Amino acid sequence: MTFYYAPFTCALATHIVLEHLGCDYQSVKLDFRGNQQRSAEFLAINPKGRVPALVTERGVLTETPALLLYLAQTHPQAGLAPLDDPFALAELQAVTAWFCSTVHVNHAHRPRSYRWADDPAAQQAMKAKVAQNMAENFEWIEHTLLRGPWMMGERFSIADPYLFTLSGWLAGDGVDVARFPRVAEHRSRMLQLPAVQRVMPLYA
Amino acid sequence: MTFYYAPFTCALATHIVLEHLGCDYQSVKLDFRGNQQRSAEFLAINPKGRVPALVTERGVLTETPALLLYLAQTHPQAGLAPLDDPFALAELQAVTAWFCSTVHVNHAHRPRSYRWADDPAAQQAMKAKVAQNMAENFEWIEHTLLRGPWMMGERFSIADPYLFTLSGWLAGDGVDVARFPRVAEHRSRMLQLPAVQRVMPLYA
Repeated sequence: MTFYYAPFTCALATHIVLEHLGCDYQSVKLDFRGNQQRSAEFLAINPKGRVPALVTERGVLTETPALLLYLAQTHPQAGLAPLDDPFALAELQAVTAWFCSTVHVNHAHRPRSYRWADDPAAQQAMKAKVAQNMAENFEWIEHTLLRGPWMMGERFSIADPYLFTLSGWLAGDGVDVARFPRVAEHRSRMLQLPAVQRVMPLYA
Repeated sequence: MTFYYAPFTCALATHIVLEHLGCDYQSVKLDFRGNQQRSAEFLAINPKGRVPALVTERGVLTETPALLLYLAQTHPQAGLAPLDDPFALAELQAVTAWFCSTVHVNHAHRPRSYRWADDPAAQQAMKAKVAQNMAENFEWIEHTLLRGPWMMGERFSIADPYLFTLSGWLAGDGVDVARFPRVAEHRSRMLQLPAVQRVMPLYA
């Protein structure tokens, strides 16, 4: 498999899981500053021009929630998702869906505000609200969603690298993670995993 | 089961699947204009104050991609998702994840622009770009994602009511669905389903 990623992106979540599972894959770094995600070569792989993208024997897969469940389902022995319990899986999927549709989107209004308005003043107004929205989302994670010690409780799951990815954006978004002690502790626990230690230097 | 919904929301997608499967459920309509989704009674059910929310014997489930897969997984005989083919399921999930994180979000910048900026002028600037973003997303659906006759090809799946929900927002977003003949044909095909005919009056 070939995994396309770029620093500072949500590809980190899938990347950690690939490494954690010991998958046989190579990774290819895209230079977003050089707009390499819009190159003809990469658009032939993922016409959306986004990462993560995973090239498998059967074709290309995209979108973090889809990639995470795919890796959990193709490596059932690792126990990264409750595959045979529809209710528990739906609870897990509600987390990954909310992460991609709400938390990631709130963050994206800082670096990618141009997606939703052309006016520079409007883009500034969006950026100005990112810290508030991210803080509200992490209040909710801290007090309700994060069961502890891992996101879904006793078992490490695909939700954990995803939470780790999003909480890693807080500082840049102007939110001090220390406001959320349980999230900060989750970050410390993630940083002890060998897979995280191997992948993190690629995202600096 | 009890299903909480409101007109004009993405609850429609899950609602169609509940009806299509012949589930034993009752539906409860929330009055969003009266801000009923923020009432103490509903916040006790879904603290996020959003629909859809499905109360099951084991607890409350939220988020459209999670609910859709849950219903497919608990009714495997209906064949609404390729549950035993991880690659095909990931392709389906890539669609539902992209719908919730990108298409729904682009639409939401019209009725919910206040979420991402406080300045009324910035909110207007966001609203002004919604038609362009939705049209771009539906170009991509029309020419690439929609395999035909159904979203994922020959088989009706959970992606179809979701596409139908999003394409139903185009007119209000200032985009003529006739620009996308294959999407328009998909709408016609959906409107012939008894489940859709039963649910649609609730969303008017």
